[in-house]
Amino acid sequence: MIKKLVLTGAAGRLGSYLREPLTQMAEELVSTDITDDIGALYEGETYVKADLSDLAAMTEVLQGADMVVHFGAIGDEAPFDDILQSNIIGAYNVWEAAHRNGVRRVVYASSVHAVGMHRIADNIGLDAPHRPDSYYGLSKCFAEDLGRMYWDKRGVESVHMRIFSCAQVVSPRSLSTWLSYDDLIRLVRAAVSAQTVGCSIVYGISNNDRAPVHNLGAGHIGYKPQDNAEQFAEKILAEAAPADPTDLAQMCIGGPFATIDLGESGVAQLTIIDDSKKT
Amino acid sequence: MIKKLVLTGAAGRLGSYLREPLTQMAEELVSTDITDDIGALYEGETYVKADLSDLAAMTEVLQGADMVVHFGAIGDEAPFDDILQSNIIGAYNVWEAAHRNGVRRVVYASSVHAVGMHRIADNIGLDAPHRPDSYYGLSKCFAEDLGRMYWDKRGVESVHMRIFSCAQVVSPRSLSTWLSYDDLIRLVRAAVSAQTVGCSIVYGISNNDRAPVHNLGAGHIGYKPQDNAEQFAEKILAEAAPADPTDLAQMCIGGPFATIDLGESGVAQLTIIDDSKKT
Amino acid sequence: MIKKLVLTGAAGRLGSYLREPLTQMAEELVSTDITDDIGALYEGETYVKADLSDLAAMTEVLQGADMVVHFGAIGDEAPFDDILQSNIIGAYNVWEAAHRNGVRRVVYASSVHAVGMHRIADNIGLDAPHRPDSYYGLSKCFAEDLGRMYWDKRGVESVHMRIFSCAQVVSPRSLSTWLSYDDLIRLVRAAVSAQTVGCSIVYGISNNDRAPVHNLGAGHIGYKPQDNAEQFAEKILAEAAPADPTDLAQMCIGGPFATIDLGESGVAQLTIIDDSKKT
Amino acid sequence: MIKKLVLTGAAGRLGSYLREPLTQMAEELVSTDITDDIGALYEGETYVKADLSDLAAMTEVLQGADMVVHFGAIGDEAPFDDILQSNIIGAYNVWEAAHRNGVRRVVYASSVHAVGMHRIADNIGLDAPHRPDSYYGLSKCFAEDLGRMYWDKRGVESVHMRIFSCAQVVSPRSLSTWLSYDDLIRLVRAAVSAQTVGCSIVYGISNNDRAPVHNLGAGHIGYKPQDNAEQFAEKILAEAAPADPTDLAQMCIGGPFATIDLGESGVAQLTIIDDSKKT
Amino acid sequence: MIKKLVLTGAAGRLGSYLREPLTQMAEELVSTDITDDIGALYEGETYVKADLSDLAAMTEVLQGADMVVHFGAIGDEAPFDDILQSNIIGAYNVWEAAHRNGVRRVVYASSVHAVGMHRIADNIGLDAPHRPDSYYGLSKCFAEDLGRMYWDKRGVESVHMRIFSCAQVVSPRSLSTWLSYDDLIRLVRAAVSAQTVGCSIVYGISNNDRAPVHNLGAGHIGYKPQDNAEQFAEKILAEAAPADPTDLAQMCIGGPFATIDLGESGVAQLTIIDDSKKT
Amino acid sequence: MIKKLVLTGAAGRLGSYLREPLTQMAEELVSTDITDDIGALYEGETYVKADLSDLAAMTEVLQGADMVVHFGAIGDEAPFDDILQSNIIGAYNVWEAAHRNGVRRVVYASSVHAVGMHRIADNIGLDAPHRPDSYYGLSKCFAEDLGRMYWDKRGVESVHMRIFSCAQVVSPRSLSTWLSYDDLIRLVRAAVSAQTVGCSIVYGISNNDRAPVHNLGAGHIGYKPQDNAEQFAEKILAEAAPADPTDLAQMCIGGPFATIDLGESGVAQLTIIDDSKKT
Repeated sequence: MIKKLVLTGAAGRLGSYLREPLTQMAEELVSTDITDDIGALYEGETYVKADLSDLAAMTEVLQGADMVVHFGAIGDEAPFDDILQSNIIGAYNVWEAAHRNGVRRVVYASSVHAVGMHRIADNIGLDAPHRPDSYYGLSKCFAEDLGRMYWDKRGVESVHMRIFSCAQVVSPRSLSTWLSYDDLIRLVRAAVSAQTVGCSIVYGISNNDRAPVHNLGAGHIGYKPQDNAEQFAEKILAEAAPADPTDLAQMCIGGPFATIDLGESGVAQLTIIDDSKKT
Repeated sequence: MIKKLVLTGAAGRLGSYLREPLTQMAEELVSTDITDDIGALYEGETYVKADLSDLAAMTEVLQGADMVVHFGAIGDEAPFDDILQSNIIGAYNVWEAAHRNGVRRVVYASSVHAVGMHRIADNIGLDAPHRPDSYYGLSKCFAEDLGRMYWDKRGVESVHMRIFSCAQVVSPRSLSTWLSYDDLIRLVRAAVSAQTVGCSIVYGISNNDRAPVHNLGAGHIGYKPQDNAEQFAEKILAEAAPADPTDLAQMCIGGPFATIDLGESGVAQLTIIDDSKKT
Repeated sequence: MIKKLVLTGAAGRLGSYLREPLTQMAEELVSTDITDDIGALYEGETYVKADLSDLAAMTEVLQGADMVVHFGAIGDEAPFDDILQSNIIGAYNVWEAAHRNGVRRVVYASSVHAVGMHRIADNIGLDAPHRPDSYYGLSKCFAEDLGRMYWDKRGVESVHMRIFSCAQVVSPRSLSTWLSYDDLIRLVRAAVSAQTVGCSIVYGISNNDRAPVHNLGAGHIGYKPQDNAEQFAEKILAEAAPADPTDLAQMCIGGPFATIDLGESGVAQLTIIDDSKKT
Repeated sequence: MIKKLVLTGAAGRLGSYLREPLTQMAEELVSTDITDDIGALYEGETYVKADLSDLAAMTEVLQGADMVVHFGAIGDEAPFDDILQSNIIGAYNVWEAAHRNGVRRVVYASSVHAVGMHRIADNIGLDAPHRPDSYYGLSKCFAEDLGRMYWDKRGVESVHMRIFSCAQVVSPRSLSTWLSYDDLIRLVRAAVSAQTVGCSIVYGISNNDRAPVHNLGAGHIGYKPQDNAEQFAEKILAEAAPADPTDLAQMCIGGPFATIDLGESGVAQLTIIDDSKKT
Repeated sequence: MIKKLVLTGAAGRLGSYLREPLTQMAEELVSTDITDDIGALYEGETYVKADLSDLAAMTEVLQGADMVVHFGAIGDEAPFDDILQSNIIGAYNVWEAAHRNGVRRVVYASSVHAVGMHRIADNIGLDAPHRPDSYYGLSKCFAEDLGRMYWDKRGVESVHMRIFSCAQVVSPRSLSTWLSYDDLIRLVRAAVSAQTVGCSIVYGISNNDRAPVHNLGAGHIGYKPQDNAEQFAEKILAEAAPADPTDLAQMCIGGPFATIDLGESGVAQLTIIDDSKKT
Repeated sequence: MIKKLVLTGAAGRLGSYLREPLTQMAEELVSTDITDDIGALYEGETYVKADLSDLAAMTEVLQGADMVVHFGAIGDEAPFDDILQSNIIGAYNVWEAAHRNGVRRVVYASSVHAVGMHRIADNIGLDAPHRPDSYYGLSKCFAEDLGRMYWDKRGVESVHMRIFSCAQVVSPRSLSTWLSYDDLIRLVRAAVSAQTVGCSIVYGISNNDRAPVHNLGAGHIGYKPQDNAEQFAEKILAEAAPADPTDLAQMCIGGPFATIDLGESGVAQLTIIDDSKKT
């Protein structure tokens, strides 16, 4: 069993959902975020307020940790300067702090948007090159390359989970791209418990019939999704407008990000209905 | 829900099996073939007699359609002149008529015989080049390339379903190559309901333990076969003659087509026992 | 030395240029076309008027031949019906006549337009899938697949030479795509003299600095182009309009064919200035 | 049904486990090994004592056989001279005897150690090149290449089953690499009953969540493992020491073989607890 | 001919070498850097002092430009914060300014260090994934991904020239990795004059016998190096210490960067003797 | 400069040709073979009689060596037992002796026959899997895998030179497969002088127009052949019988080895006219 885990972004939409499960995977969970407070703590959890953009602070938070689960970042498209601070500098600080503390592994919330301009009809795997669809996606590319270097040169392992649509299924697109909350937990659990991973990438997507990507070559991570958005298909398709086969936002795996203006925040979020607390 | 679907080859062995399911996928199904009559119609279905080799007629039939499911063609090896008329000119007429009418997608009954000369032991995927085993297979290659061009230049989507052995399992080969009637319907349903497909290829084969090909890269179509010919294995293998490991007809995924003379009709059909109406 | 060669399309723009060189590669050259007369014959050459669309006639012309160099076809985009007659049926007749006569090899004038919708920036090789840009290109795809089948099933070898711009260099595009007349002859000579070829594809392009494709995997053909369009670059670029980086006609290796309407003849020909007779 | 099967290494750890199942796949099973006696015989089984290093003896044993299931060899790392005798010369003798007797197929116990130096994080498939981790693994590479040649030149089929950890699950590594005894039997059964196989390779591994390799491209063998080592994960991981991410023995799919000295016997065996007789 | 070119980093080691050649490729060259002065100007050249980290300034400099040749950045390993300012933010500013001004193409000085951790013995091509060896290399990965996105979403073309050792040949490594000053100019000239490039990558290396990478797939750029470091081999190898086959600094294409500490400046520069002004 | 080189097979057809050039690459050359005497020695050369099948003897010969150039072996097809002794055990002894002495690199005379069953028309590169055509070729596969393991586990570098037809050009096949004696020397020189090679493979073939393989991915070795068998083409083709396109001996890169019986010696040698001493 792992002694100490650190979770960044613990107050975020997805991070908050991971707190309880992670307490079951380690003797000690240190949750961190920039809010003052994240409410009641789970058994084995402590909370430390710290800013990702502060390397010294992050170095302190990661002291003695075995692994860090890094979910702290802006989770949507934003102006470049904002992405730069939270997502690019933030990623550097986490990896550098991990290295300074001898942390074994970074489990990282990468995103489909690192490869979002690839076409659905190409049904890419893990060997497809980066094709970001946004500054947000570009920051994920940066962190993936950063993680590769820290593995190659410093022996810090990383798992880059390219998360798809971890939210309620409300559109035809999410029939393809859904990642259920339970599968998110399965994924993080697998990424933490895999024995050796070097620098690995894995798509964070449920076992959807219509999945627009495949995970061939990530078997060693041991991620086996159990949910399938097809259960919602009949209802959603009945109400959906006909698809436009030449609209990039419908042709690309990044969805609406493929056509939004760079730096224009909030567009994709519109389709997210946060039901994570309902269960 | 789709407003209007057209089904060509509605009187054919496989087409007739699709009529009822397709009525459930669209408000209106127009079935078409060259026979005078296809018997009692399903609710929502109309029948139009039309010749695939007549572009004007096809253009009229496809008027206002959202998609066309194109199964009309000679379904066996035949002299080149016959294949030319029904399968090559026929395919051109369907795509051209689709384009003229703004039809969004052609769902096409391609065939294993487009790649039939590949070896079973190579267990090919969707990226294998064309290797037709017959004029019949060659016409399928033609239509796949035609569909690619109509997508690249005119934005007409297509799904090319390379159908294997959609018939009763009566030989060791069909333990590998079986496509159950139910899986055929699942496949067509998936090809119709997938949101955007560009120009995609998918193998039309059941979930057989011994499948000689794989569908990696077609995940976005959402085809999940449920049947498995292994249920028939014990009985069929007990009665089978020993395999000949260097007989092309047993080594190639096209089966007996790999060794028949070009243009020689009927050979492969001999092993088909049409039980499609039994269920 | 080869005993008997047949050249189809001997009266055509490129075919007429091959007559003299081919007489030097065989004891006997039979030139054939649909015109009554092709002018003065070279030593060792005879002329037979024959229609490619007549299988019996072609079978007679190919009697006793070792190889056929097949250049007879419409050499530009045209309505589908025209392409069907000359290029699709014509190709079938040549291969079938070759088979009936035990002809060892078909050396075929395929075209860049079989893959014309691929992007220049992808710099494709010989393993790229078909992406025709025109009915003309589609007929080349058909003949390539036909040739593959006649090799797989009947042991008729073929070399598919995907000819680029065999004409005067008059545009920025042809700096990339030029095939000099001398290199055309080198190519045909190599395709004829290679010892065994199975079914091989090779790009017919000069040794241009800016070649948009590469011939890796065709080394066994022994084609070594000697000319390079870069000699014309300074003059042509000085007069050229700025490129439009998102115009498909400039992005695709098929050039203007990528954006012409299907079946619309003559567009690409406009840029061809036939200087083949000047030398 | 197969008339006559031969099993080599019938007295070995894995071979002894196969005897009973193989009697159900053939009218006659000839078990062979170098011990005097293998105990009570199953119905349809006979035992012949024979030395793999004796070509004449092996030729006699294989007389009239349809297939041979070749498990006889040193099953662990050993000095080169020992491996040479039992595994290299032994493999030659089996294939040569098979050829002399017209035996249709060799079903061979290859090993993960033929590719043991590949990294877990590369999650290789069947197209990865040989990277042996031991003389033992090197002998498996030899036999795979031998089998390829006997297929290419003499039409003797072979299935090369790269067996992983067919033993009790007692370490974090075997959560990834387990091959249950039942899945071993499923694998051999599939390799024997597949219709035509040419020269095929397949990984012999259970359906483990954490499998470090994948079997894409071996579908035609029809091997569908049913067991999954994940059932043991909680207990084993709770007791396991933290992984060392830069230890080759933990990074490579060959496990401890990746770091043992060549020729040093017994290291890997230490982790094998033979429970094959318990069930 | 191009109307207006902008050169960033015009005062730098490589940039200063490009000024004169670029004046010959455009009617107007605007050189820019952060120094007050770059000495005497060439005919057609103007100089503008501007800071890459100032988006407004860069936007002004690029006004009306057709293309920008972007060489301005820290050209060696440096602390992350420095790389962030000059190389990451600088790249963003250049591409964003290009987009705002409708600049057609960015010709970018990327570096071998974007892929520096790949092994020489793997002899990678252009399809190898990023494996940076330094923060410097990581910033090049960032800019390549940025360029890809600006092409995919905004139609700004880019050529990413991964420059190797553009300096005097003084070590065994540079026999492999040399880019002569003349070939650098040929490369930039090709990248500017290529007709359409989308987002292309090309290795910036001379025609060295021992080149550790190949440029297959970049043919459309038209870069044909003329120099070959082999001319220096005899002298350099005679004086060289024996290679250490397991030293990463000798095994990796990034050379000494493969083993320097991240952020440690100056190591690699030690081997550069700047003879660019001698010619 | 290298201090001490060892050459095995120094009395053999190719080995004897390498003696003089190798003396120029090292301060000391130790030539070794099983004959008593190899005639007059070159300056810097000593001769030691030693048997490759004697590990102790080879260990002594390699004492203090930097590299070994291993050409000692049966150079033709032979019965398995003979190949086993000279080529398989011999290779093991050379690598093991190299390891015991800390020898940095083995430069090995592998052969086209390791991949001889591949088809000419597939024009394979270095990534093609082993397909030996003879016991001779199989022993080359063995040594390549052995060399890979000694690199992976023990840091002994190796270059595997797959030598084609190093003999006079007397047949159409050798127009494709020729390796001139001068190019052989260039190849060995490159393999010795390359800085770091890990475990690399390179085809040993001249710069023939009709080369049936390509060396993409071996650029780091620095082998640049200068000769071209095309100079002999006119004469040889004029006298040659027509090719048989379906004869494996003409279709496969292994040539006549593709159809000889395994173990049948001398067939291929018939076409070798040893003119190596003439020059």
